[in-house]
Amino acid sequence: MSGGSPRKILLWLSYRGDGFHGFAKQPGQTTVQGTLEAALADVVGEAVPVVGASRTDAGVHARRTAAHFVTAQPIAPQRWAAVLNAQLPPQLRILSSQQVPLDFHARYTAIGKEYRYFVLHSRAPSPLLVPYVYRVHRTLDLVAMQQAVQALRGTHDFTSFAKAEAGGRRVRTLRRLELYVGDPPALHASDGQLLTFVVEGPGFLYNMVRILVGTLLAVGNHQFDPEAIPSMLKARDRQQAGPTAPSQGLVLWEVRYPTIPLLFGRSW
Amino acid sequence: MSGGSPRKILLWLSYRGDGFHGFAKQPGQTTVQGTLEAALADVVGEAVPVVGASRTDAGVHARRTAAHFVTAQPIAPQRWAAVLNAQLPPQLRILSSQQVPLDFHARYTAIGKEYRYFVLHSRAPSPLLVPYVYRVHRTLDLVAMQQAVQALRGTHDFTSFAKAEAGGRRVRTLRRLELYVGDPPALHASDGQLLTFVVEGPGFLYNMVRILVGTLLAVGNHQFDPEAIPSMLKARDRQQAGPTAPSQGLVLWEVRYPTIPLLFGRSW
Repeated sequence: MSGGSPRKILLWLSYRGDGFHGFAKQPGQTTVQGTLEAALADVVGEAVPVVGASRTDAGVHARRTAAHFVTAQPIAPQRWAAVLNAQLPPQLRILSSQQVPLDFHARYTAIGKEYRYFVLHSRAPSPLLVPYVYRVHRTLDLVAMQQAVQALRGTHDFTSFAKAEAGGRRVRTLRRLELYVGDPPALHASDGQLLTFVVEGPGFLYNMVRILVGTLLAVGNHQFDPEAIPSMLKARDRQQAGPTAPSQGLVLWEVRYPTIPLLFGRSW
Repeated sequence: MSGGSPRKILLWLSYRGDGFHGFAKQPGQTTVQGTLEAALADVVGEAVPVVGASRTDAGVHARRTAAHFVTAQPIAPQRWAAVLNAQLPPQLRILSSQQVPLDFHARYTAIGKEYRYFVLHSRAPSPLLVPYVYRVHRTLDLVAMQQAVQALRGTHDFTSFAKAEAGGRRVRTLRRLELYVGDPPALHASDGQLLTFVVEGPGFLYNMVRILVGTLLAVGNHQFDPEAIPSMLKARDRQQAGPTAPSQGLVLWEVRYPTIPLLFGRSW
């Protein structure tokens, strides 16, 4: 390692989920963390661990997330974005880089994460939107879905909405859970609606966002009554909620941190 | 071939250009035409030629284009979309199918084609938009570009704006050539502008849309003065125009036909 004292570098990054087997490093798989660490090792000549804000599943996209690493390499903090992008594939890009205090932690310092899930409601397929939307063609009862959204928002024990083996605190807060209905993007050459689910909170259980969306779609299909949501929550049983929506419509939209002293680089 | 008299079937289709080496069949390459013909041969048990409205280059997307084939297979015309989609990869989808008169021709009956070219003007990369936009980061003189747009619109000899070996009539009409400037799509996590070039006309020379866009961007960079466009056209020399913009930002948006007697299926 070349001279100087160690600095902590924060990377803002964006990636396409369909190019990776998720964020977390796994032997023999192309992952976001593995690809970042390989690029970094190429630059500094030794292994440097990269810590991400969120371990997204295979297929889940990130519009803007964060990661940190520590280095004594004499490269200006803002320069790391360009240095790493020169090594990274086009489906994974560093948006910007900056120095942060040594006690900053990409995961533990985060105070909120926002996910968006896109559902294209159309009878026609949409190959140009394929990587970013989950398409459904059945009629959806949007009034029932909005009722279920109301019942799920706020603080609850979300055990029924987590993959059974998920660990961690089961009581979670959905500061935002919203469903917007609008026109499909212009790249979709047919009729339909784009449903956007916005989910924001301090943290989520494993698969929670996808199970929330899968349950809301099941309410839209009249498989569940929106009035059943409170008892579904109370049951603390994964079997009581709806299916897990596919990963392809899910985008980690934004990770939020408290304002901390900026040392270098752009404000975040 | 199973019984009945031959029918001509029109397919409306959409595909992602990054999944194919262009539309036209080529030995040893994955192409749109080759993939369609392979799917069709699987269904009918023999080779059936498919004729497309436009032979897009490798990397060029199609939001909505058309193709035709002739068959005596006793499958209802509207059913072909679902039958073929069952055989096709997700990056190539049939939007709908219908019967057309035997004298209809996907290429020769077309009266207009609309292309759109998307340029993301931003200092930050955008991995989620990668397949559909060409990103530039230099400052662009939009006033000069709009001036050049005015000078190019209409009927001209476009020899200077065609790949040198292109054949066909050199006088072409741009019924529409427009440049719209707006906010980038929400999937782009940074500042910038989205430039949309809309190009519509009865037909185009080889690479013409990409050379038009490349020239307009060169005007935006002050490599050319917009006042030079008339002499550029007059020169009839490919060397006088700007570079060919990359294929990835180009989308064949729509193919238009005159109203012809509908036999089956949805109106077009």
